[in-house]
Amino acid sequence: MRSAIYHLRVEFGDCDPADIVHYPNFYRWFDAATQQLFVEASLPREFLRKEYAVVGMPLLETGARYKNSARFGDRLTVECSVVECARKSIRLHHLVKRGADLLVDGFEVRVLVVPHPDDPQRLRAMELTEAIRSALG
Amino acid sequence: MRSAIYHLRVEFGDCDPADIVHYPNFYRWFDAATQQLFVEASLPREFLRKEYAVVGMPLLETGARYKNSARFGDRLTVECSVVECARKSIRLHHLVKRGADLLVDGFEVRVLVVPHPDDPQRLRAMELTEAIRSALG
Amino acid sequence: MRSAIYHLRVEFGDCDPADIVHYPNFYRWFDAATQQLFVEASLPREFLRKEYAVVGMPLLETGARYKNSARFGDRLTVECSVVECARKSIRLHHLVKRGADLLVDGFEVRVLVVPHPDDPQRLRAMELTEAIRSALG
Amino acid sequence: MRSAIYHLRVEFGDCDPADIVHYPNFYRWFDAATQQLFVEASLPREFLRKEYAVVGMPLLETGARYKNSARFGDRLTVECSVVECARKSIRLHHLVKRGADLLVDGFEVRVLVVPHPDDPQRLRAMELTEAIRSALG
Repeated sequence: MRSAIYHLRVEFGDCDPADIVHYPNFYRWFDAATQQLFVEASLPREFLRKEYAVVGMPLLETGARYKNSARFGDRLTVECSVVECARKSIRLHHLVKRGADLLVDGFEVRVLVVPHPDDPQRLRAMELTEAIRSALG
Repeated sequence: MRSAIYHLRVEFGDCDPADIVHYPNFYRWFDAATQQLFVEASLPREFLRKEYAVVGMPLLETGARYKNSARFGDRLTVECSVVECARKSIRLHHLVKRGADLLVDGFEVRVLVVPHPDDPQRLRAMELTEAIRSALG
Repeated sequence: MRSAIYHLRVEFGDCDPADIVHYPNFYRWFDAATQQLFVEASLPREFLRKEYAVVGMPLLETGARYKNSARFGDRLTVECSVVECARKSIRLHHLVKRGADLLVDGFEVRVLVVPHPDDPQRLRAMELTEAIRSALG
Repeated sequence: MRSAIYHLRVEFGDCDPADIVHYPNFYRWFDAATQQLFVEASLPREFLRKEYAVVGMPLLETGARYKNSARFGDRLTVECSVVECARKSIRLHHLVKRGADLLVDGFEVRVLVVPHPDDPQRLRAMELTEAIRSALG
């Protein structure tokens, strides 16, 4: 299935007083990798909004296992892959590496939300269309 | 003129490997103090949007002088005051203190932006109305 | 076992273009809640460093399930509890609520790391002492 | 004098509900550009610590003027230059551009701090040596 590689350098401000990456930043990079994957899959935000009235891609669940820490100046990659397209949800897998060294193994489960037909103030997860599945497949 | 006091505690993740607050966070707190001042002035975002079609409060200029550093666990206040309402711009002054001790002295200059009448894709700064001036005065 | 309640207000800058909290911020708040719990348990960073040479509390694993989104201005609480003290690791449970409404259900698994006796450049997880267990119990 | 170019892509999470970059992030990028300049000048943190006992590069003053906003997906450069080395302080100039388009014009004034000879708990700004001036000149 579709994958993307996000490149980053750990900045001084990404690190905490223990001199390692403050862990919420790994989720910031998961998000950036997923956004890149959707753009590369020709599913940028503007397209999803115009074509399907999608207002966002909120998370149902996220998680990460930390194998090794990262420090200021490290050059990292996030290997992001779609691992499942269910009826309404998309599961992404994220591997953060420094060269060949695995630092973090994580995931995100997301839905695409659209205004509810009965009440446009509320949102609901849309069923993933064949076109979306195929772009992510 | 109108002022507001924003309270915060410095978190571990706000600090960098030098064990002090990473300085962009002071601007994050300036922004939070300004947002609080606007809410207390009965000018929340939704009201500005409905009443004047305001889509945001972007910055023209910001700045800060740093007198003393802050550390994890410090309880700080940001004293935020409107110091000038020009025809289209608002100048806010921010004093970050730990007790009576002044840590940072900063400012923001903001405008309220609305869609341009000739081209709704572009934005322009609105003239501040008497009602807005009075709420901030 | 020990628990702590961390209070926060969602700031404008915590939210993304979908107008809801950018999800990595929930982990930022988990971290803040855990730090508060350790301080309330009389286990602040300086104490752990002086008493046990602890240089940090890195994560082994984190995760979260998202039930409902949060928006600018929301007042939230993070209910943080120690749910397990294994030989070397501590599991914390985090419930983010807006009033009685559960927004996020998450966890962290952490270790306390100390310099390795054979090579002070390397770190290793320490065995949790009875005093630490009792403070967290 | 010495200059560096820092490259970045604006991420979704760098933007706020007004759909533009939340302004404190520009200072985050100023900091990253300065850190890069010091590394390129062969003055990385570890060197400054070992050679001069420098424990950090805190700010005396920062500021920025905003000409144009930036959005998710924009590829930006920060052109960072040393513009003055005074006896103890260094002034850096930052230009944030999208292609040839200037978005933000900012600056930082920093000092290098070392433990005070009379009281190692306190810090003081060091006099910049000829070697440091020459590396930055």
